[in-house]
Amino acid sequence: MYDGIVQELIDEFGRLPGIGPKSAQRITFHILQTPSFDVKRLSELLSEVRERVRFCEICGNVAEQERCAICRDPRRNPEFICVVEDAKDVAAIERTREFRGLYHVLGGAISPIAGVGPDDLRIAQLMTRLADGTVQEVILATNPNLEGEATASYLSRLLTTMQITVSRLASGLPVGGDLEYADEVTLGRAFEGRRVL
Amino acid sequence: MYDGIVQELIDEFGRLPGIGPKSAQRITFHILQTPSFDVKRLSELLSEVRERVRFCEICGNVAEQERCAICRDPRRNPEFICVVEDAKDVAAIERTREFRGLYHVLGGAISPIAGVGPDDLRIAQLMTRLADGTVQEVILATNPNLEGEATASYLSRLLTTMQITVSRLASGLPVGGDLEYADEVTLGRAFEGRRVL
Repeated sequence: MYDGIVQELIDEFGRLPGIGPKSAQRITFHILQTPSFDVKRLSELLSEVRERVRFCEICGNVAEQERCAICRDPRRNPEFICVVEDAKDVAAIERTREFRGLYHVLGGAISPIAGVGPDDLRIAQLMTRLADGTVQEVILATNPNLEGEATASYLSRLLTTMQITVSRLASGLPVGGDLEYADEVTLGRAFEGRRVL
Repeated sequence: MYDGIVQELIDEFGRLPGIGPKSAQRITFHILQTPSFDVKRLSELLSEVRERVRFCEICGNVAEQERCAICRDPRRNPEFICVVEDAKDVAAIERTREFRGLYHVLGGAISPIAGVGPDDLRIAQLMTRLADGTVQEVILATNPNLEGEATASYLSRLLTTMQITVSRLASGLPVGGDLEYADEVTLGRAFEGRRVL
């Protein structure tokens, strides 16, 4: 549609997740038409991120060193490990400021349809971390969907033999949400998990 | 939230139009976690696009040479000029394959609120193009909103003295749309512009 390279950049942006052809076009034109947009900086960051960023050898979170900022932080409580599917989930939980323990990133969830089994996840590494008896509680914070629940119950079964408390994040109505618009599964969970006031 | 450079790249993506913090994070992690994603290519395209892409000296469309691919194409009919606000609109109209004339990109629309007046647009260049008498019809394809309509009526008044047909794209119901969900202005326009069958 466009002269060569403009279309190539649109196509390249279109390969990124959540960016359709229209957004890709909008972004490309923004870059073309905004002289103040620092193309060099974005290019450099892209290259650097690939070179410098690795995954924490302990928890699997993103890191610029061998260990991530959370695993390096001596103020974090090593008795609690929160198990998540993805490094993005670590950031989401960190934003709540509710949790001061450590994390373990599985790198996905069990999904027979997608061909992801327990051996494809960082479960062996989790077991190794739990071996020395420091950890008192494992909080299963996989997603509240089919794959996440399957992964949580798999892990929960795996951990029953150990002297460790295993917990799961509460399911229920989203805060600020509207009961009327909640799906029946969520509403059902909210009933099931109701608390006496 | 994240270790230095990951957050920097998230922030940089977040500066692009239509990309919120969540999307920026998703894109950054996609790049981090997809070894096959060609970071180098994206970086190179970003730099090249800035260096190589300019705007056509005739119509203002994006171009890799002094003149854009459309202005260079001898098969296009120079008797018709379609006036649009933005180079993105050229691409949108080209996709319809309805128009075989040339374009003129204004670079925006008249907007007193945004402080954009006629002198800020490529209107003088349009008048120069019309001076030699080749053009028979000017199709005003500015957006069907307040600014676009203002720009179209400004241009229409400006062109009344010339021996040129001035037309405006039809407003009406979007094809495939649902009458029930059309806003009243669109529906009003659809009535106004109704055609005898």
